[in-house]
Amino acid sequence: MTQQTFPLNTWYVACTPDEVKDQPFARKICNIPLVFFRNQDNEIKALEDFCPHRGAALSLGFVENGKLVCGYHGLRMGDKGKVASMPNQRVEGFPCIQAYATVERYGFVWLWPGDQTLADDSLIPELTWAISKDWAYGGGLYHINCDYRLMVDNLMDLTHETYVHASSIGQKEIDESPVSTKMKGKQVVTSRFMDDVYAPPFWQNALRANDLADDVKVDRWQVCRFDLPSHIMIEVGVAHAGNGGYDAPQHLKASSIVVDFITPESDTSIWYFWGMARNFKPQDQSLTDSIREGQGTIFSEDLEVLEQQQKNLLIYPDRKVLKLDIDAGGVMARRLIERAIKQEQSLAAKAP
Amino acid sequence: MTQQTFPLNTWYVACTPDEVKDQPFARKICNIPLVFFRNQDNEIKALEDFCPHRGAALSLGFVENGKLVCGYHGLRMGDKGKVASMPNQRVEGFPCIQAYATVERYGFVWLWPGDQTLADDSLIPELTWAISKDWAYGGGLYHINCDYRLMVDNLMDLTHETYVHASSIGQKEIDESPVSTKMKGKQVVTSRFMDDVYAPPFWQNALRANDLADDVKVDRWQVCRFDLPSHIMIEVGVAHAGNGGYDAPQHLKASSIVVDFITPESDTSIWYFWGMARNFKPQDQSLTDSIREGQGTIFSEDLEVLEQQQKNLLIYPDRKVLKLDIDAGGVMARRLIERAIKQEQSLAAKAP
Amino acid sequence: MTQQTFPLNTWYVACTPDEVKDQPFARKICNIPLVFFRNQDNEIKALEDFCPHRGAALSLGFVENGKLVCGYHGLRMGDKGKVASMPNQRVEGFPCIQAYATVERYGFVWLWPGDQTLADDSLIPELTWAISKDWAYGGGLYHINCDYRLMVDNLMDLTHETYVHASSIGQKEIDESPVSTKMKGKQVVTSRFMDDVYAPPFWQNALRANDLADDVKVDRWQVCRFDLPSHIMIEVGVAHAGNGGYDAPQHLKASSIVVDFITPESDTSIWYFWGMARNFKPQDQSLTDSIREGQGTIFSEDLEVLEQQQKNLLIYPDRKVLKLDIDAGGVMARRLIERAIKQEQSLAAKAP
Repeated sequence: MTQQTFPLNTWYVACTPDEVKDQPFARKICNIPLVFFRNQDNEIKALEDFCPHRGAALSLGFVENGKLVCGYHGLRMGDKGKVASMPNQRVEGFPCIQAYATVERYGFVWLWPGDQTLADDSLIPELTWAISKDWAYGGGLYHINCDYRLMVDNLMDLTHETYVHASSIGQKEIDESPVSTKMKGKQVVTSRFMDDVYAPPFWQNALRANDLADDVKVDRWQVCRFDLPSHIMIEVGVAHAGNGGYDAPQHLKASSIVVDFITPESDTSIWYFWGMARNFKPQDQSLTDSIREGQGTIFSEDLEVLEQQQKNLLIYPDRKVLKLDIDAGGVMARRLIERAIKQEQSLAAKAP
Repeated sequence: MTQQTFPLNTWYVACTPDEVKDQPFARKICNIPLVFFRNQDNEIKALEDFCPHRGAALSLGFVENGKLVCGYHGLRMGDKGKVASMPNQRVEGFPCIQAYATVERYGFVWLWPGDQTLADDSLIPELTWAISKDWAYGGGLYHINCDYRLMVDNLMDLTHETYVHASSIGQKEIDESPVSTKMKGKQVVTSRFMDDVYAPPFWQNALRANDLADDVKVDRWQVCRFDLPSHIMIEVGVAHAGNGGYDAPQHLKASSIVVDFITPESDTSIWYFWGMARNFKPQDQSLTDSIREGQGTIFSEDLEVLEQQQKNLLIYPDRKVLKLDIDAGGVMARRLIERAIKQEQSLAAKAP
Repeated sequence: MTQQTFPLNTWYVACTPDEVKDQPFARKICNIPLVFFRNQDNEIKALEDFCPHRGAALSLGFVENGKLVCGYHGLRMGDKGKVASMPNQRVEGFPCIQAYATVERYGFVWLWPGDQTLADDSLIPELTWAISKDWAYGGGLYHINCDYRLMVDNLMDLTHETYVHASSIGQKEIDESPVSTKMKGKQVVTSRFMDDVYAPPFWQNALRANDLADDVKVDRWQVCRFDLPSHIMIEVGVAHAGNGGYDAPQHLKASSIVVDFITPESDTSIWYFWGMARNFKPQDQSLTDSIREGQGTIFSEDLEVLEQQQKNLLIYPDRKVLKLDIDAGGVMARRLIERAIKQEQSLAAKAP
């Protein structure tokens, strides 16, 4: 048995509501093949994608009156994993399939892949930007063949922007500015402040979009916040220099939150939900679209780096890598992850 | 060593004669890479696709005067697996390769992959429709990535027509009519009779082709017959209602035999020879073609269902699936298969 | 652990200098992922393609002032595998990565994948045709999915030309002429002489290019020379018949050297550097180009044969193949290879 690499008793972003239309929708999460569909109340539900009759993929079937009908022999599955009916059959004694708690909130569908008795809505992180009229959000989804922790490392060390994203958000001063990493409660926070620098192209655009001069010096910041299991919110922004930077008044800065939900598909592949929330010109949909497009291009630059890194680590599984100060964010995040997995396992061992 | 999943001392359909032209033809059957070619008498012969000289694939070579010439260094292989000659070499002491008994009969090439001393032509099933002028036949071949027994299950439980083939041969009444499954000698027979129903589109076409009204009620039947190792003949048809159904006089019905030969390529892939034999308008070639086309489309609808089911069963190898009344045909067929494999193995164990 | 199939304390051709431009260049050799780049002196250097910081592929980075800069977080790697610098980091204690000896010579980059203390330039074979003005060379590179020894066998037994290359360099008389194989020092030499035959199309072209009649009988020869680890030089040519063949005066013959460097990528794949050196009309670049094109087409005919042979040998790993007189070249070459590997291993075992 391979070692567990992700916590299960936690909420992951599984998909966005628009991915689950009239038809069932298949996605593997945490090594579990799942089918998502809408029940009679139009709620999105998740079940194992395995018909208890003969093992067909329920996702190849269809939805009728909120029941998931197997496309092979017509077994009708209820949204709790209990068979509702099957033509000419008494289904009371049929085995159930596992249902997984899902919650539609903040524009995402959240899934609890572990012990279902522990699924608790209140543990879903609060995302104020997602429900406020002062904020706009745009994002996308990438599939990447790497361990989800490599993406955590990536996002908790933005030094890589200088190299991977040199033409958009990277700049020399990132490298040159020290980083500070701390635990704040159960959150890992890693921050970098670059004062009195010129904004790179992406931020020049943002300044202009914000009706601010883009050719003057700015104070730039990056504050990455990691929460279990693998949610990373990064406060990023620039303010005209000398006005307090991160704390500058709203009309002198352009800022936003880079939103990252990293959901393991398998031990070496992920669903990466990326996006950006901003609190300037929130009604400007064309601005939302152009930021999404820009961010999509930038974030796609990480794919090959991560996939090649994963390949290298599979070739040399026992080779130690370094843990520098810039890596502290990822290192602390991994420590939280390991602890969560251990707690989970000792809890499971104690279960009656 | 993995468990054997198919009998070997039996006849499988390996290919159709038209697949073996002037050139050698490669096909893997029961995990054995084979090469088929025509000898000097134009008989199709099958050998291991392995040159005893250096292991090259003989199928990349050519046929000359009924000998199979290796395309690498010119070794000439005879049709019994004994080397005939090689330029500048004395070949008497060369090792032989395994030859496999083949018989061209009924428009198919039959292969005996097991103990060659037991290969007996008389064990090839008799197919009267294949040699009678009163019948026409059209068919095709699909490669599907699934255990051959999943296809046996599929064909021995036609309930799936309602779902997989809803727009052509499926209809609600299939689900609603009980099925009866029996052993008749060494044959598993599973039957379903639907009286006084409307014909689905495929059968409306057949009625018209048979010069019968297609808008009146019919009695419909499906009689599936499984024979070892994996041959399934399905008598299907409709008769104008109230005339005896299956036993109605010829001029009041449209009927045919769905012909299925399922040949394992590997433990999780098959060559599926499908077709339809009919005893109405047998000379009408364009009718044969249009039926073949329709059937090809319908049968292609099973591919994804079966391949996804196979994937699910590989993910959960120990998970039990149900054995309902509608599954009885497949269940009994699998019992015959298991018994045949066991007999084969105890026979092999006793061999001197 | 699988058995070692190739010597490591030896020089392999890794690439050609033109493959390593301004950017780093990735190639796996002998199962080692390598990155090639040019240092400040424009020398090509080879390192493990593994950044000691976090395991990223260095080949995705860039070269700056002769240093290899990791494209992920900017670690700057020196050409000996020692980290030169990293923004904001003290790198003295960073682990090194393995550097591999490389030599640019004769138009190739030679790599020593084994014990670096034993790398000795003087062991690179002398290639007089590569440095003489009387010779011209053209060649190319193929990637083939086969054990490198299958390609050694292929080139040390040119009988296959009759079959694989029937339309270009093959001819019946190759088969009919005996072959002679001998050890000459540490070199395996296998020769075939065909007197008083008609030249096949490739050699007719060469005769014409050499201003010689192409419709008269010729004496043809093939002298294959194998040197460790897997270099094969084949002297080939035709002379107007009766003038001494191989020893005929220059103006009565067309001759050249088929150049083959076979470099293992993995146990079952190779980088195959092929080419032809000729000592007639060496200044005629368009002749060089047309020969290269012709040879490229001919040599591509071997790919499928070798890849299918490899697949067969993987299916039947314990099956013995024949060792005929025509196979003696490959057999002796394999004996040299095995001995070299054994010596290497006993040397390594003795190491302190």
